[in-house]
Amino acid sequence: MVKRYALGIDYGTESGRALLVDVETGDEIATHVLSYANGVLDETLPDGTKLDHDTALQDPNDWIAVLKTTVPAVLKEANVSPEQVIGIGVDFTSCTVLPVDENGTPLCNLPPYKNRPHAWVKLWKHHAAQPEADKITQTIHERGDTILERYGGKMSSEWIVPKIWQVLDEDEEIFDAAARFIEGGDWIVEQLCGQEARSSCQAGYKGMWDKEEGFPTPELLKALHPKLENLVGDKLSPDIKPLGSKAGELTEEAAQWTGLKAGTAVAVGIIDAHSAVPGSGVAEPGKMLMVMGTSTCHMLLSEKKASVPGMCGCVRDGILPGFYGYEAGQPATGDIFAWFMEACVPQSILDEARQKGLNAHKILEERAAKLQPGESGLIALDWWNGNRSVLVDAELSGLIVGMTLTTKPEEIYLALIEATAFGTRKIIEAFAENGIPINELYACGGLAEKNKLMMQVYSDVTGLPIRIAASPQTCALGAAILGAVAAGQANGGYDTPQEAAKNMARFKDEIYQPTAERHKKYTALYNEYIQLHDYFGRGVNDVMKRLRQMRLA
Amino acid sequence: MVKRYALGIDYGTESGRALLVDVETGDEIATHVLSYANGVLDETLPDGTKLDHDTALQDPNDWIAVLKTTVPAVLKEANVSPEQVIGIGVDFTSCTVLPVDENGTPLCNLPPYKNRPHAWVKLWKHHAAQPEADKITQTIHERGDTILERYGGKMSSEWIVPKIWQVLDEDEEIFDAAARFIEGGDWIVEQLCGQEARSSCQAGYKGMWDKEEGFPTPELLKALHPKLENLVGDKLSPDIKPLGSKAGELTEEAAQWTGLKAGTAVAVGIIDAHSAVPGSGVAEPGKMLMVMGTSTCHMLLSEKKASVPGMCGCVRDGILPGFYGYEAGQPATGDIFAWFMEACVPQSILDEARQKGLNAHKILEERAAKLQPGESGLIALDWWNGNRSVLVDAELSGLIVGMTLTTKPEEIYLALIEATAFGTRKIIEAFAENGIPINELYACGGLAEKNKLMMQVYSDVTGLPIRIAASPQTCALGAAILGAVAAGQANGGYDTPQEAAKNMARFKDEIYQPTAERHKKYTALYNEYIQLHDYFGRGVNDVMKRLRQMRLA
Repeated sequence: MVKRYALGIDYGTESGRALLVDVETGDEIATHVLSYANGVLDETLPDGTKLDHDTALQDPNDWIAVLKTTVPAVLKEANVSPEQVIGIGVDFTSCTVLPVDENGTPLCNLPPYKNRPHAWVKLWKHHAAQPEADKITQTIHERGDTILERYGGKMSSEWIVPKIWQVLDEDEEIFDAAARFIEGGDWIVEQLCGQEARSSCQAGYKGMWDKEEGFPTPELLKALHPKLENLVGDKLSPDIKPLGSKAGELTEEAAQWTGLKAGTAVAVGIIDAHSAVPGSGVAEPGKMLMVMGTSTCHMLLSEKKASVPGMCGCVRDGILPGFYGYEAGQPATGDIFAWFMEACVPQSILDEARQKGLNAHKILEERAAKLQPGESGLIALDWWNGNRSVLVDAELSGLIVGMTLTTKPEEIYLALIEATAFGTRKIIEAFAENGIPINELYACGGLAEKNKLMMQVYSDVTGLPIRIAASPQTCALGAAILGAVAAGQANGGYDTPQEAAKNMARFKDEIYQPTAERHKKYTALYNEYIQLHDYFGRGVNDVMKRLRQMRLA
Repeated sequence: MVKRYALGIDYGTESGRALLVDVETGDEIATHVLSYANGVLDETLPDGTKLDHDTALQDPNDWIAVLKTTVPAVLKEANVSPEQVIGIGVDFTSCTVLPVDENGTPLCNLPPYKNRPHAWVKLWKHHAAQPEADKITQTIHERGDTILERYGGKMSSEWIVPKIWQVLDEDEEIFDAAARFIEGGDWIVEQLCGQEARSSCQAGYKGMWDKEEGFPTPELLKALHPKLENLVGDKLSPDIKPLGSKAGELTEEAAQWTGLKAGTAVAVGIIDAHSAVPGSGVAEPGKMLMVMGTSTCHMLLSEKKASVPGMCGCVRDGILPGFYGYEAGQPATGDIFAWFMEACVPQSILDEARQKGLNAHKILEERAAKLQPGESGLIALDWWNGNRSVLVDAELSGLIVGMTLTTKPEEIYLALIEATAFGTRKIIEAFAENGIPINELYACGGLAEKNKLMMQVYSDVTGLPIRIAASPQTCALGAAILGAVAAGQANGGYDTPQEAAKNMARFKDEIYQPTAERHKKYTALYNEYIQLHDYFGRGVNDVMKRLRQMRLA
């Protein structure tokens, strides 16, 4: 029998990846990664135009380069003919949004707008729309609207309406010139199949859309700004495609870019973190998946609808059909360690790494693994990139307390790991307090793969066992699973994501188990974390916000 | 005319120095330094015996080595005959205390006690007597005694009674074997002139002695522990020699060690930081001298007696005759930067230093000097070694708040400088609030000499001009000044310290001046510092103490 394959294309923060997967077995046949030439634009545009604080932009041409490079590369490496690839799925960072003209051309590609920051893609971690987000939260509360209950009560500066409103506030000409605003994932799907198919996942989690309640009303949008009244319809498509459905078929042009066959099924896009849920094989309630990379997304399926403070969204059928999909998050995890490696790792660690032929990260992990909970004498708040859940406040910042003249680098490193684990425990407790208990943790992503110390600390801090997804690229695998579903059983794929996930995804054998003694010590430290969390995060002392104001002044 | 010289011998934390000074002009003719072979013993004794947390010991043989090495070296270098040296002064870290037998031999030099930590010298920064210090404070308050009013209301773990009591608590046999306990400075003076001459400076600042009120009463000492009742008299000399007087004359044995002439006048010892006051030429009220090295001592002369919360002592005639001498302090300044250089300075800074042929400190200073107040977005509490003034609490620890993913090493470095400057401002304000205004700052010591950025930040934070002492070794110069006074005018010296200081000490021409705009911004940051200071330091959230308990558990 001829083998059938599905292709997952995974767009991350710094690079894009293609993954070719055997539809029957889930075996990952070939993968290829391309770093974005322009990476994250957070200081200047490519032409040198200076960017404001908290700006994080991207270049959509980098995304097209991923299609043209990585897809032909995996076909070639696997020696697979285009006919054998039955479906294509795309997962993408979100909310990553760009303004386009009538033809779908990004405004930043048009000469008059090239040097205008607001013509470019706003990346998920662009946080400069905080004033707009705050005004939206305030307006909704003033109007007695309940729309934010699905999102933990607060609008995030990362979502689509604040980002679009920032464009209107700061560069109205760009707002006017935009025929549409579109999520990066939906835009790439449009480039593949020639038509927009706005995903229920992005629209539900980042666009305030709800399957039963629809969109934010024109009255609400008008209350924000008169020119936003008809945003949905005028500049945002009101036509939402459910996750797991087919967006269209590959165009001739896209077939030429990729080397695939024109007419191949293309799935509706999914947010990268959400794609990891099918990609990790998690398909039951009570299990939380942590997608751990530069940031952490926490994904949870439940049969119950609940309002949990500070979660990032509750979307019916938003992750898998038949469940409410919950998302919570920590906006910096790997990013904190990358910062630490760059800004704080001293000569002595680097020297030891050189001597032992290991990297510095490994040396820190070795040393930190010897410390008992509390032995460092340190505690940190993990807010280097703000707090997403449960405080939903991008203006918070990091804190370390307890330094003495004998504090060692590995102690700071461990305190940072512990702080991110405490942040996750706070999220788990918020769900439990609102009637959604979590009994098991699952993890996937680079950090979960590589950092055993971190996984053990998370298990000890939460008191829960943790399993690790078998695939090192669960997001891309989840996208490939959706590609196989878009093709359908009749074409050698599957008819539901559950069925596809059951066949195509699995876990590792190793399970991290908590130890009672360490859990007890960490609970004492966690109580200290919560006191600091509430003092600095709930308005008792808004020093972090004032420091931020002074920094920007 | 034959030139006359005075010799200052300065005992610091890591090394000892001899300085030969022209009595008439103050010209510094020759100096020599010897690092202590055993340095600070904070992990093990020389034989490998493990030491407890917060222990910091020294080896008195290292001090004798300083006499034998550095004094002959300066005589040789200056080509000065022993007859030309008219007087010797000694300044010493304090409270640095050791138990000795009837002959003045340190117990740690006796074979049965060699491996017993409590037989060794407790260095000033030995902080393990905190439980004893706390019990003393409590007992004094319970008895309604006013003795602590001179010391800001709290007993410091660094002072002589808690340190002696710790010996009794933890190794009673050593306590019993000790014929006397003696300050390091007084012990060295005894080695030079063959008799104890207990200094009014150490006794006043670290030993609870007061010129008018005398010693702590036997009733109080008995309330601490029955065996302490007759501590003064039994194991501590009750015979206090005023500062500026002669302790005795050089013995034949000490003359052989040093190459000086037997019979040379030896001055009563002085605390190192206090010695910097005459050594810097500060001799009027309203001027505060900051002695800036590993830690900072703040010295102030006043005609008024006042009780200022959290100062380290108010001693009549304790610094210069005719004034109340006030001392306050920050227990880590240079030590914090040394820690930062060791534990936190990353590759990028080290690379730039190598490229430019500068040291890493210089690179950080260059980069930090470009930042405006508040631009780092950070604020720190400078409590890496606890807080001496105004909280008098060795169990406090360091804090940094405001980190983001873009926080740079030079921003942390600047925040640490600013934090130590805020600590100094808090001390200045405590004096002012209690009727002792300060109009001008003076600084001496390694940091004041080398770190221009730091001096400018201190000036901007406090809003006061700062002058720097001309001598790079003001403590040793102050000791030499006291040596010249011990000799007396009849022998070519001086009859008062004021007169000697006027002739032998001076300032640099350069003055640091505050700028109004930076002072205003720093005042906003200082207000944030004070909020954090009171929250973490005054019992609202005792997380630092609990973290410390967990670390030691």
